[in-house]
Amino acid sequence: MRIEAESAITGGAPNMIRPFAGNGRPRVVILGAGFGGLAAAMGLKGADVHITVIDRRNYHLFQPLLYQVATAGLSPAQVAMPIRRILSRQRNVTVLMQRVERIDKAMQLVETADRAIPYDYLIVATGARHAYFGHEEWAESAPGLKTIGDATEIRARILSAFERAEVTQDEKRREVLLTFVVIGGGPTGVEMAGAIAELARKVVVRDFRHIDAASARVVLVEAGNRILPAMPACLSAMAQRQLEGLGVEVLSTNAVTHCDAEGVMLADGRQIRSSCVLWAAGIMASKAAKWLGAEADRAGRAMVDERLNIPSHDNIFVIGDTAAVKNEDGCPVPSIAPAAKQMGKHVARAIRALMAGDPVEPFRYRHRGNLATIGRKAAVADFGRFRLSGYSAWLVWNLAHLWFLVGFRNRLLVFIDWGLAYLSYERSARLITDRHER
Amino acid sequence: MRIEAESAITGGAPNMIRPFAGNGRPRVVILGAGFGGLAAAMGLKGADVHITVIDRRNYHLFQPLLYQVATAGLSPAQVAMPIRRILSRQRNVTVLMQRVERIDKAMQLVETADRAIPYDYLIVATGARHAYFGHEEWAESAPGLKTIGDATEIRARILSAFERAEVTQDEKRREVLLTFVVIGGGPTGVEMAGAIAELARKVVVRDFRHIDAASARVVLVEAGNRILPAMPACLSAMAQRQLEGLGVEVLSTNAVTHCDAEGVMLADGRQIRSSCVLWAAGIMASKAAKWLGAEADRAGRAMVDERLNIPSHDNIFVIGDTAAVKNEDGCPVPSIAPAAKQMGKHVARAIRALMAGDPVEPFRYRHRGNLATIGRKAAVADFGRFRLSGYSAWLVWNLAHLWFLVGFRNRLLVFIDWGLAYLSYERSARLITDRHER
Repeated sequence: MRIEAESAITGGAPNMIRPFAGNGRPRVVILGAGFGGLAAAMGLKGADVHITVIDRRNYHLFQPLLYQVATAGLSPAQVAMPIRRILSRQRNVTVLMQRVERIDKAMQLVETADRAIPYDYLIVATGARHAYFGHEEWAESAPGLKTIGDATEIRARILSAFERAEVTQDEKRREVLLTFVVIGGGPTGVEMAGAIAELARKVVVRDFRHIDAASARVVLVEAGNRILPAMPACLSAMAQRQLEGLGVEVLSTNAVTHCDAEGVMLADGRQIRSSCVLWAAGIMASKAAKWLGAEADRAGRAMVDERLNIPSHDNIFVIGDTAAVKNEDGCPVPSIAPAAKQMGKHVARAIRALMAGDPVEPFRYRHRGNLATIGRKAAVADFGRFRLSGYSAWLVWNLAHLWFLVGFRNRLLVFIDWGLAYLSYERSARLITDRHER
Repeated sequence: MRIEAESAITGGAPNMIRPFAGNGRPRVVILGAGFGGLAAAMGLKGADVHITVIDRRNYHLFQPLLYQVATAGLSPAQVAMPIRRILSRQRNVTVLMQRVERIDKAMQLVETADRAIPYDYLIVATGARHAYFGHEEWAESAPGLKTIGDATEIRARILSAFERAEVTQDEKRREVLLTFVVIGGGPTGVEMAGAIAELARKVVVRDFRHIDAASARVVLVEAGNRILPAMPACLSAMAQRQLEGLGVEVLSTNAVTHCDAEGVMLADGRQIRSSCVLWAAGIMASKAAKWLGAEADRAGRAMVDERLNIPSHDNIFVIGDTAAVKNEDGCPVPSIAPAAKQMGKHVARAIRALMAGDPVEPFRYRHRGNLATIGRKAAVADFGRFRLSGYSAWLVWNLAHLWFLVGFRNRLLVFIDWGLAYLSYERSARLITDRHER
């Protein structure tokens, strides 16, 4: 693999070298173009640095709305945007679609299959994905939701269940096909369960002749003693009531002990037969800690200091879901988009300070609130001082998410889509697709 | 496999039988929910029949716009709509997502993996897909465009080529990555080549740092002596000029003799090295003729009489791209959406006539015109009496396609998308997705 060492910058075939060398300017390499990575890149706008953003996908994903793709509410292109489009006008940024293979701290190199990219400052923001707590074999029968690919796969499974139920002549089989199990009572699980219940009761119900889609059974399983554990208990209770209002069975204090194509087994010995089990329980950080040989917590997140550095490397930052960060009060900073954004902005400021020889401020997380939507006109919101639930929370949720959607055109289209969906009880993207279909 | 014989209609477990029996009403089974199949189903609206529409996908695809999905202009959900949504309000229709395995003409049964569905009238409208003229091994390196899955796969290949070109440091490799070959000079090939050239020169060009996307080479290869052979020669020439204006190399009278991951070999001995070869040459009808044991032409289309029946079966109709139909003047009816729609409507009228004991009119194809778009403000249109090219043809093309898009909401969203894309030179759906990405 070619290594573009400092020495190579001046000499060598320009086309081969110039792109990734900093032309003497400090080189900032950002791994991952999620909320944290993008915030860091944007925070360095105009700075006299050469930024390389590396992501293995070509799109930035608006994770909070991904469940709507999985439940046929929105199209992938409405929650994802090409990274290079977002950063197109920021001239000090280069975007590379590459998979990181290792990081050489001694040589200060990020190595991908095709390249070795040198850095002066490294920002690791590679996020997290769902974890099966050592039961990776469950992945096939209980897919999780992290990528566009996951979402279209889950969408196909949900819609296919109804289609197959319409065809079958076996009553028992039909019941299994019309049973949906969501594992994990965090925001994603709650949103998925609510959206599936609405899809069944309000949307597809009109379109079938032999099944009563509204009779579909939607079960939300949570190992802990309440759903939305990050929320105050009162809001968890409200969320549960709203879910139950949509006809979702909420089974808390009930861990899943086994999971296969037949359905799930619960800790209390119950078996729920289902052809569509979805995983929203627990996440595991990316390999970043391994790459960096850094100490990690149980969720695989790299332990960082209050400057978001790993020990004895004040030029290597780990942010977002990849980092285990403690708040002033000692509580962990939550794994949510706003936290990742704040860290990204902070690191951008820190790098400017380091370059200027100024002191670097420690990172302070400002909690702006927690939101979770349950369905049409149903949501819960916790802003510390005041709390909302029901319609008002749902409105806040919509406005907030619309507002933070990257890119005007997406915002407009999503707004129209939501408007039409709200008025018509329609879902825009009810497609069972498979790139291998022929 | 259970067979719902007439005798079973009155007795038997209701839930198992009633759905597919006609309750005494004549049972019409329609295979395929493309333009022809849908037109036939809609043409029987209100008729005292029990219609079962069988399609192996859950969506009706607006084929004429599929190339825009493949070139990141539109999202899949904007050119596809759930079949059961479209037919939701037509109470005499049942939709089944099933793959047809065989047809038993003696028993009058359509057999799928799970069911045997009896028919009194059978309408076969299973369309066609691209053919490799006995070189099926080319399919992997030169995918064709027929399904949403094909389109997102092609989109990923096109966008990935630019991404990989941005990463590579090998000049030669970069050239290969920035060479796009479209095989087949029919409407689809012309539209693809034009759209790729525009994508490179107008859209992505701003987003890369190391490559000049505008320098991408787009080659359109046509075995015949001119592109758009179905059009008058003068319009073919205009189309070629407009393509060349977009920087597309048009190589006519030049068949492809070999095709692999390295690129293509042409009849004149030339080799074009390319990492992205797309197939738009020739189609092959579905298995319908085989299922029916009917005589077929070279393209696999069932030979039908002027009533669109196969010989000695006046209750079995074959329509659309699956049928070889001669016009009054003896010329073959073209394989285009309007023709399929006309056939579908005709068959619906024929079935009503047969039920009423009235004479059945022969099918007469009315040619409304030919349209092909080349790019922004560029298209050709042939309406027999008058012909258009350039901007005016492009406007007609847009209005026509917008108008015929199934479903108001899609129409509105596509309109907005096109508007924004036109104003901003943006493409809404530049996503490299893979349902197996993890």
